[in-house]
Amino acid sequence: MASMKSWVIENKDNGFDGLVYKDAQIPKVGDNEVLVKLQAASLNYRDLIIPKGKYPFATKFPVVPGSDGAGEVVEVGSKVTGLKKGDKVATLFNQGHQYGAIDLPAAGTGLGGVIDGSLRQYGVFAETGLVKSANNLSAIENSTLPCAALTSWNALYGLKPLKPGQVVLVQGTGGVSLFGLQFAKAAGAIVIATTSSAQKAEKLKKLGADHVINYKEDLNWGETAKKLTPEGAGVDHILEVGGSGTLTQSFKAIKFEGVISIIGFLGGVDPKTQPGVLDTLGHICTVRGVYVGSRALMQDMIRAIEANDIHPVVDEKVFSLDQAREAYEYMWGQNHFGKLAIKVN
Amino acid sequence: MASMKSWVIENKDNGFDGLVYKDAQIPKVGDNEVLVKLQAASLNYRDLIIPKGKYPFATKFPVVPGSDGAGEVVEVGSKVTGLKKGDKVATLFNQGHQYGAIDLPAAGTGLGGVIDGSLRQYGVFAETGLVKSANNLSAIENSTLPCAALTSWNALYGLKPLKPGQVVLVQGTGGVSLFGLQFAKAAGAIVIATTSSAQKAEKLKKLGADHVINYKEDLNWGETAKKLTPEGAGVDHILEVGGSGTLTQSFKAIKFEGVISIIGFLGGVDPKTQPGVLDTLGHICTVRGVYVGSRALMQDMIRAIEANDIHPVVDEKVFSLDQAREAYEYMWGQNHFGKLAIKVN
Amino acid sequence: MASMKSWVIENKDNGFDGLVYKDAQIPKVGDNEVLVKLQAASLNYRDLIIPKGKYPFATKFPVVPGSDGAGEVVEVGSKVTGLKKGDKVATLFNQGHQYGAIDLPAAGTGLGGVIDGSLRQYGVFAETGLVKSANNLSAIENSTLPCAALTSWNALYGLKPLKPGQVVLVQGTGGVSLFGLQFAKAAGAIVIATTSSAQKAEKLKKLGADHVINYKEDLNWGETAKKLTPEGAGVDHILEVGGSGTLTQSFKAIKFEGVISIIGFLGGVDPKTQPGVLDTLGHICTVRGVYVGSRALMQDMIRAIEANDIHPVVDEKVFSLDQAREAYEYMWGQNHFGKLAIKVN
Amino acid sequence: MASMKSWVIENKDNGFDGLVYKDAQIPKVGDNEVLVKLQAASLNYRDLIIPKGKYPFATKFPVVPGSDGAGEVVEVGSKVTGLKKGDKVATLFNQGHQYGAIDLPAAGTGLGGVIDGSLRQYGVFAETGLVKSANNLSAIENSTLPCAALTSWNALYGLKPLKPGQVVLVQGTGGVSLFGLQFAKAAGAIVIATTSSAQKAEKLKKLGADHVINYKEDLNWGETAKKLTPEGAGVDHILEVGGSGTLTQSFKAIKFEGVISIIGFLGGVDPKTQPGVLDTLGHICTVRGVYVGSRALMQDMIRAIEANDIHPVVDEKVFSLDQAREAYEYMWGQNHFGKLAIKVN
Repeated sequence: MASMKSWVIENKDNGFDGLVYKDAQIPKVGDNEVLVKLQAASLNYRDLIIPKGKYPFATKFPVVPGSDGAGEVVEVGSKVTGLKKGDKVATLFNQGHQYGAIDLPAAGTGLGGVIDGSLRQYGVFAETGLVKSANNLSAIENSTLPCAALTSWNALYGLKPLKPGQVVLVQGTGGVSLFGLQFAKAAGAIVIATTSSAQKAEKLKKLGADHVINYKEDLNWGETAKKLTPEGAGVDHILEVGGSGTLTQSFKAIKFEGVISIIGFLGGVDPKTQPGVLDTLGHICTVRGVYVGSRALMQDMIRAIEANDIHPVVDEKVFSLDQAREAYEYMWGQNHFGKLAIKVN
Repeated sequence: MASMKSWVIENKDNGFDGLVYKDAQIPKVGDNEVLVKLQAASLNYRDLIIPKGKYPFATKFPVVPGSDGAGEVVEVGSKVTGLKKGDKVATLFNQGHQYGAIDLPAAGTGLGGVIDGSLRQYGVFAETGLVKSANNLSAIENSTLPCAALTSWNALYGLKPLKPGQVVLVQGTGGVSLFGLQFAKAAGAIVIATTSSAQKAEKLKKLGADHVINYKEDLNWGETAKKLTPEGAGVDHILEVGGSGTLTQSFKAIKFEGVISIIGFLGGVDPKTQPGVLDTLGHICTVRGVYVGSRALMQDMIRAIEANDIHPVVDEKVFSLDQAREAYEYMWGQNHFGKLAIKVN
Repeated sequence: MASMKSWVIENKDNGFDGLVYKDAQIPKVGDNEVLVKLQAASLNYRDLIIPKGKYPFATKFPVVPGSDGAGEVVEVGSKVTGLKKGDKVATLFNQGHQYGAIDLPAAGTGLGGVIDGSLRQYGVFAETGLVKSANNLSAIENSTLPCAALTSWNALYGLKPLKPGQVVLVQGTGGVSLFGLQFAKAAGAIVIATTSSAQKAEKLKKLGADHVINYKEDLNWGETAKKLTPEGAGVDHILEVGGSGTLTQSFKAIKFEGVISIIGFLGGVDPKTQPGVLDTLGHICTVRGVYVGSRALMQDMIRAIEANDIHPVVDEKVFSLDQAREAYEYMWGQNHFGKLAIKVN
Repeated sequence: MASMKSWVIENKDNGFDGLVYKDAQIPKVGDNEVLVKLQAASLNYRDLIIPKGKYPFATKFPVVPGSDGAGEVVEVGSKVTGLKKGDKVATLFNQGHQYGAIDLPAAGTGLGGVIDGSLRQYGVFAETGLVKSANNLSAIENSTLPCAALTSWNALYGLKPLKPGQVVLVQGTGGVSLFGLQFAKAAGAIVIATTSSAQKAEKLKKLGADHVINYKEDLNWGETAKKLTPEGAGVDHILEVGGSGTLTQSFKAIKFEGVISIIGFLGGVDPKTQPGVLDTLGHICTVRGVYVGSRALMQDMIRAIEANDIHPVVDEKVFSLDQAREAYEYMWGQNHFGKLAIKVN
């Protein structure tokens, strides 16, 4: 069996120093499995905190890091029916989450946390753990879809599907927010984006944002956002990435029966200062925790990406596989705009 | 114009003493209005706290109290098309909430708080503020539907419609909870109910509860409830009436992608001890504030009540119109089981 | 009471000669009614066949013709809450169809057939029979929405809401088809259009059609359309305006579980040659008859039109109110492209 | 490798004589596969016409017949995660149809037609081709679920989910119809059933039918059914098994926006006498072809069967595996009531 290069997180006590680059065996394909030559990977905030031992969900060590990957099929098992050699694929984040609501077993199949991830030259995946990539995108672009894009899509389509003419609010310029902006515009919605800099505001407008609010200048931006909506009725969908500060404003901005999707925990929220769940009654709204999404949703999303030729926003700086640790440091330092990608092969 | 008897809340500073029983004019019908001879009314927790000045939503004084009523049409305006003299009707709680999501104007049309309510012999209502009553129910039974029953129905059908085989959890023996139990059983769901007494547990089982948990004996009842569900996956729909104590358990009981409907604030919750909205992410669930419901939902509900011959649970003690103040006292003392009703005419 | 000009169809036996232009009284507003100064009207195929006695649904004579209108509020009744003087409005086609499924009474409230329509200078309508117009459109543009646009929107959103990335097929260049094309593109869908001329094909492409098939050159266009869809899986939504010939091709083009919306009967179909309903089993698809749509859908649609600044395609030739009969003749001769409009005031 | 008994259809030209009973090898399990000791099978109309060469969908010969089966897991492949030895399972009809709309490849994976079916002592299936059986049912009862029950469930929940209080119409006493009756009653719906005999009418009432119409005595039963619905508005869901005669009546009975599910072709319909698809416009209704259903729907259905302790109606006469050909003859002669079952092991 041939060998390959692979990153491994040996344990969760050493931060990025725990990331080790070494030789490994290329795994064998089983009946329903597919060997993928990985071409690109992208990093998420989750990837950064796993080696720091701060990730609040299931992990297992040692593990190959990397939640997101894209590549090309080089071999298929004897009973694989939907993929063949040469197909371009992207990985599914929760390998076991096929459709509908996630269940407990599937919630323990996250790539790069429990199951070996994408920071290696080759990987074997169940056929059901892969989807055909978007045919309008490069491998690097496709590698940004499994976590960030799918979380955003799930927020917009997983509970109350977004309709043209509704209003979506996204916060900041992280991956999920930018995908949310792009998906919402492609779907005929109005988008309000928040940011802290005039420069980023320009980029958000170029991506199609109808309104951009500088949340440093307008501390009460939730009310401002509400006033920008048709008849001041409020925002239909909020992609909430922040924390207690943003949450308070999100409750001001939301429409009756609107949905606030909780998709992250970047803000390091003090549990005592975030709004309580009873506030959903006073605001007659819905709050939903969104944990990435199913393979079925990912296939729908890719269809939409192709039809609208949506291109993910990828940071100009792309790292090579052997530079993965530098990529982690770069992203940790918040030097990126959009998704941070690693060219694997 | 003939006169009638009517209760009025003159102001919000005098508690139940602020409830005054007096003579009033029977109002005239406009083109699209209907004169209803009210036959029954029922009380809600909301009705109790309005004269105490504790109701957190819009009010206007003086106002005829009574959120819920049922009666018979005695006269219709010249352009009324859907109702005629002799029709039995129930009142819609938010008179302006016709269908879909409630909007701001409609949220200010609650009977007995902003608009004159049901504790009077006659009332004029817009045709769109009435629905034909359930034809299998008495006027007293019909008078229990506008708030409690519709809130419960909205919780089960307003966002993610309940399906046969799913699990519903209801808390205690208040009106919303008992309707939730009855609706869920009629719809082929499994019902878990919580209560604090063996006697009430018996009644809950008679109403069809599949499992009853005594929350005083089992402080960790949320986990117990989860274990009772198929494959221990958790509860699909929780009707949350309580407060911070129950909320913590509800988060333990809920299934991934399940819905916790916030329908009350009985528990006098300390905002610092209730779960924060970010907990929806850790539990991958949805929390929704439910504010009664639309006329469209009420019509669907009545159809279901008729088809399944569901009879609301009404306390044995029924008061007459002139005894309304005693009824408030009786309910405040928590002497009732099920809905408390007042015979109006 | 002031007088105005109005068209009337005296009876259904005289074709366009039965259209009479005369003086009439401006009607009075009731409590819940609104007096509208009509500014524009647009014609539908339905309007043409009503005076010819060929319309298969309910009619009543004499009747003011005109299914579609737009104008400005000049007076409101004492109990109107949602509209005020100066508001721009469009008429709802089935005045009684407020939300959800249409019912039998509402199906008998079509403007210009049973209820007096838009070809007059002033009209009184129930508040619920009007919607605020799209604020990005002229009165003439708004007057094209009530029938054609809403039918199209209902087809796409009334049963299985269209999602970005899905495929929509529209036939020809009639009003419903062009709106379908515009709505689908705004919503991020792929659009396949059929037509019989290269010139019209160009116009369809300018409106955003991804693929245009000349059905005169490609008699088996249904299969061609299917091949153009992702993985050749077929079309998700077909707006079927035609008749037995097109239906046979639509069944070839449709995806499993796709929806063929039957929105017209232009083709003069021989019942013996159209596909039978059992063909839905062989093709595992759904066929739905679409009869315009509700006020709730119309409000959603207008929100989408505003958000995406969609402008209806209106024929270059616009008639004045006194020329209405010429407008009927012009449209009957199929000289138009897009909607044919009449400037009323 | 041990041997077993198995039926085989050698070709499609010999009718039931083409059914051959012989020895076969017990197949080996692959990585993601499961060896099932089949305990019961049940027959469908489809099974009868496959050996007669009359089945209009894909087949492949030789093939082990039997669309439906239930049994016990005796061995699992190394990568199976959701099933273990001893689990009770039922087979999925279209082995490849996991969730959502069926696609072309999945439509070619029907058991007993393309893929070897259930009339054998042992079978190997992909893990995804099995579901855990209903824990309240015997193997014989479970074996009736894969085609008939799931088709019925798909009709009621696959497009417009049935709600309590709606009206369902089922025709005759075939398997799909009886499941439809039972599911609808468990879900709180009103059920109208049609039959041709007083004796069967009694059985239908015992199963919960609210109304039974004898279609031989009441040729215009569609109108009768409509009158039986609340406010005469019509039936929400019709499970159409019949043919042109029943279809005409179904169109009379259906409610505006109601759904007629086409689930069979028993009536030997003359394509010229069935209603055309354009009739959906005149009746403002939807017609949907239903082809069994997905694994996701089957799991939902089993949850509902368990929660409501629904027991399939199985004909009193149960055959043994070696008598399978007699079972075919018995069913062909229409001697059965409910599902016809075969005890396999």
